[in-house]
Amino acid sequence: MKITNLKECESFAVNMEGAKGATRQMPIGKADGAPNFSIRVFTLEPGGHTPHHVHESEHLNYILEGDGVVMEDDTPRVVGKGDFVLVIPGEKHQYRNTGNVPLVFMCMVPGQYE
Amino acid sequence: MKITNLKECESFAVNMEGAKGATRQMPIGKADGAPNFSIRVFTLEPGGHTPHHVHESEHLNYILEGDGVVMEDDTPRVVGKGDFVLVIPGEKHQYRNTGNVPLVFMCMVPGQYE
Repeated sequence: MKITNLKECESFAVNMEGAKGATRQMPIGKADGAPNFSIRVFTLEPGGHTPHHVHESEHLNYILEGDGVVMEDDTPRVVGKGDFVLVIPGEKHQYRNTGNVPLVFMCMVPGQYE
Repeated sequence: MKITNLKECESFAVNMEGAKGATRQMPIGKADGAPNFSIRVFTLEPGGHTPHHVHESEHLNYILEGDGVVMEDDTPRVVGKGDFVLVIPGEKHQYRNTGNVPLVFMCMVPGQYE
């Protein structure tokens, strides 16, 4: 059993092409013995975003803090604290922080994509 | 893409043997097209608990509200809002609400165990 929180998890800049003002933490992943899927947490600074991209794996997301939009293809959908989002495989998507405070969200993925 | 929140998710009593004062919601699951794993949310009333049991699937948990303990075999470990917990396959565990307000936590599992 592992118990942790975000204060204990190291934060890494996201250097993917198309990302801006984004950091990543990994509270639970393969290295902890999670056999099938992993929890990543992304923090987007105001004006920051993830890549506007498509991939073969799904995202299961939960918004921990802040306000923003998720692009569903080219349509912005407003999200905020307490929202759950399912991005299905092959769906073009992007998270954008449209607020004045960090947008923090969990992003669960199959372990091979962590 | 599905976007939802707990206010929109129906709540069901947990009738498993060994559970007390527990309800379950399912913001994202197989019915939504999630191909590999699902997000369940459990709410335990004060004094409530999940079964003290063991199974072949893992749990990836995140505490949304409240205070309690997770039994790691027979040892209580204190958890509260903002904690992430990994219960590995085969590990005996139980969530107990030791506080005075509901203990609410996300519980991600492989889809076949949702």
